[in-house]
Order: sequence, then structure tokens, then C-alpha cells
Amino acid sequence: MGYELYYWPGIQGRGEIPRLILEDAGATYRDVAREPGGMKRMDRVLAGDEPALLPFAPPFLRAGRLWLAQSALIASYLGEQLDLAPRTEQARLAARTLMLTLADFIDEIHDTHHPVAVEKYYAEQKSAAAQRATSFREARMPKFLRYLERNIERAGHGVLVGRTVTYVDLAAFQIVAGLRYAFPRAFGRRAKQVKQLLALHDRVARRPALAAYLASDRREPFSEHDIWRRYPELDP
Amino acid sequence: MGYELYYWPGIQGRGEIPRLILEDAGATYRDVAREPGGMKRMDRVLAGDEPALLPFAPPFLRAGRLWLAQSALIASYLGEQLDLAPRTEQARLAARTLMLTLADFIDEIHDTHHPVAVEKYYAEQKSAAAQRATSFREARMPKFLRYLERNIERAGHGVLVGRTVTYVDLAAFQIVAGLRYAFPRAFGRRAKQVKQLLALHDRVARRPALAAYLASDRREPFSEHDIWRRYPELDP
Repeated sequence: MGYELYYWPGIQGRGEIPRLILEDAGATYRDVAREPGGMKRMDRVLAGDEPALLPFAPPFLRAGRLWLAQSALIASYLGEQLDLAPRTEQARLAARTLMLTLADFIDEIHDTHHPVAVEKYYAEQKSAAAQRATSFREARMPKFLRYLERNIERAGHGVLVGRTVTYVDLAAFQIVAGLRYAFPRAFGRRAKQVKQLLALHDRVARRPALAAYLASDRREPFSEHDIWRRYPELDP
Repeated sequence: MGYELYYWPGIQGRGEIPRLILEDAGATYRDVAREPGGMKRMDRVLAGDEPALLPFAPPFLRAGRLWLAQSALIASYLGEQLDLAPRTEQARLAARTLMLTLADFIDEIHDTHHPVAVEKYYAEQKSAAAQRATSFREARMPKFLRYLERNIERAGHGVLVGRTVTYVDLAAFQIVAGLRYAFPRAFGRRAKQVKQLLALHDRVARRPALAAYLASDRREPFSEHDIWRRYPELDP
């Protein structure tokens, strides 16, 4: 089955975890908004043209006749469809739980530079951003990182859940890569406490299909228009 | 099957939507942390005592032998188990998408009083909260409300998805009730634009099992220790 992923072109953003899953699985997919005329198509779906689903925002996915939105739901759906999920019902529920927790972590990363108004520029909220980033570096990031590290320890196979790499491990890879970009100092200071998470990042990055994707021009670079932004004043 | 819900006692919080679903369905469940000794049991699970799942935070649910966490996942799981979900695969995916979008809305409501540090008091972040609440009242709340109203219009049966009341409608009820408590002025000014959503709220509130729950002492009152807080300075 061919998939259609819809997400803003030019950034990784919340489309990237679904994209990593599609690429790692070698799935056939179209990245619709990056194609000529694709932005108009995406806008029409956002305006309500698709009877099956009115998405609140990108990303959204067409999987054959089915439509769904919300990055964590898309990730769990694709992971389970593409054999990148654990097999037992309990482990699938644990993976879905982890994926939503990773999505929460990403929301908090985003809010470090947009704590008071998503519709305004970072420059208009720098004072609140400095406070939020302090809380993120000192309280929230360490709490989320400890949680991920503990899950890997508990699973006992170098992955977050089960025995083999699943979609939640691809999501964790993206978070580590993003934190290294956006908070190189604060994240670097925690490196010794998340050795298994860093090993998991490296293990995911070496997977042949994913390595090929990361080296391709389909992988957008990190930037200050994205979720993960390197503002040195937020990472002193 | 008996369910065990785990959530902080004394508030509605993120446990309330799972609770509404359990109550509406007439399910047999224990609200563990409200029982004598239940807080200790919840703490042990949070500390990692349950091999099946390490939750990041409450709420979490035991359903027979299965464990899961994250309020939106619990809501979708319970809704689908308890015949409070649509039947077709497409409508189930639409409901899961809507549930995650409602959870995002709730996160943004919470962040109006905690924009820069969840671990600090509101009194320590009042200036940023005033900015975030302005953005919420003027941009985000209207956008989410329009989205919900459009979904009800599209479904054509006075509900968010499908033809009958589902778990996402119970979640929408909770959001309307919470907004009326926390932002009576700002929400009141939008009332004419969300007539179908208000009608859905009233329809849900009249369901016999839910009405009985809302009138019981199991329904905690809204308060300023909860997600939905009435701070008059945030709703001028």
C-alpha cells in the first residue's frame, strides 16, 4: 500500500517521526506537500475537503482509504502496520504510552522558545522563554531523560520496549538528535546519565535504510524555524 | 472485567475523562488512589513496581492483565472496549485523532496558568501567564472551538464523529464544563459561535449514568489546584 504523508515542507517538525518510520521500513510513500502543487492539496484537506477527516493541523496521513492525524497516532499506526512495533498486546500498549510521552517531551522542547504565544515570534517572548528554558534544562529534560533511560534498562535489550528496535526507538533517536542540536550544553552535561539512550540513538542511526535517509536531501537540516532551535541564550 | 484507574485524589485533572467514560458506561472500576492505602499503591507503580509498564505520570489504568497510561490513550482504549466508540476503522481513527486534539486543547488550557515552569506556583509566573492567557483567549481557544464546532456540523448528528455519543463527546463535555469554570467571560463571548458544541455538552450531561455521576460525591468540584482554574485576572 502506498502512503501519503502531509506536512509543511522545509522543516523536519512534527512530520519527521512518521517520516523516519516510513523510511526505516522502506515503505512506498509520497511526501505530498513537497511535490509541485502539493501545498494546495494539503491546504484543501485542512480546509475540510476530505470527508473522512478534518485535521486540526499537519501532519496527517492517508493510508489507502484511511485518513488520520496527530503525529503520535500516525507513528503508532505506521509502526504497527510496518512491522516496527512489538507484537504482544501489552507491549503495543506500552509502546503507544511511550510514544505519547515522547510527544509530550517534544511539546515541552517546542515551548522553550514559544512559552506564551505560538502565533508570535520568539523575539516577542524572550523573557518568558528564558524562564521556561531554565525549567526545561533543570527539571523537565532531566526527568524525561531519566524516564527513557529507565525504560531501556527495564526492557533489557537496549531498546525502549520489547526486544528489537520499534517506532518508539526511532522517535527517541529524533529527540536525542534534536536535543543535541538545540541544547548541546545542557544535554551534554547529562550524557553520562543516559548512556543507554545514547547507545540506542547510535544503533538507530546505523540502520541501513535510516542511515541512507539521513544522508539524503530528503532529511531537512535542523533550523531555527523548527521545533528544535539553537538559541545560545537558552542554553548557557 | 474490572478496571483500576490510578490518579491523584482530590482533583478532576487528567483522570476525569477516563472516569467519565467508566461512569457513563456503567463499568465496574476501582479509583485506586482514593481508597485507603491506594496512594501507596500508586506510588509503587510510579516507582517501577509493575513489570508491564513504567508510567511517566498518572493517570494510568489496569484493565485485567493489561496496563496503559496517558489520558488520551486510556480514553480511546476504554471507549473502544466499552462500546462508546464508533464502529468503522475510519471513524475509530477519526475519534483517536480528535481525542489527541482535545488533549492538546487541555494542555493549552493548563499552560495559561503555568506557562514557564510546571514545578513552580502560579504566583511565580503571573506575568507570563497573563501573556499566555491573552493568546489563549484571543487565538487558541477560538481556533480549537471552531474546529470542534465544524466537526459536529460535518458529522451531522450533533456529535463529533459518527451518529451516536462516543468517548470524544464525553471529553468535549469536560472541556466545555472546564472552560465555563475557568474562562466564564471569554468563553461566554464565544457561545453564539459554538451552539452545537453547547448542545452536545447538554446532551452528554443528561445521559442518566453521567448525570448520576455528576451529582455524586465522586465528581470532585473544580478548583484552583486543577487544570481548569478560575483566576479573574486571566479572564478580564
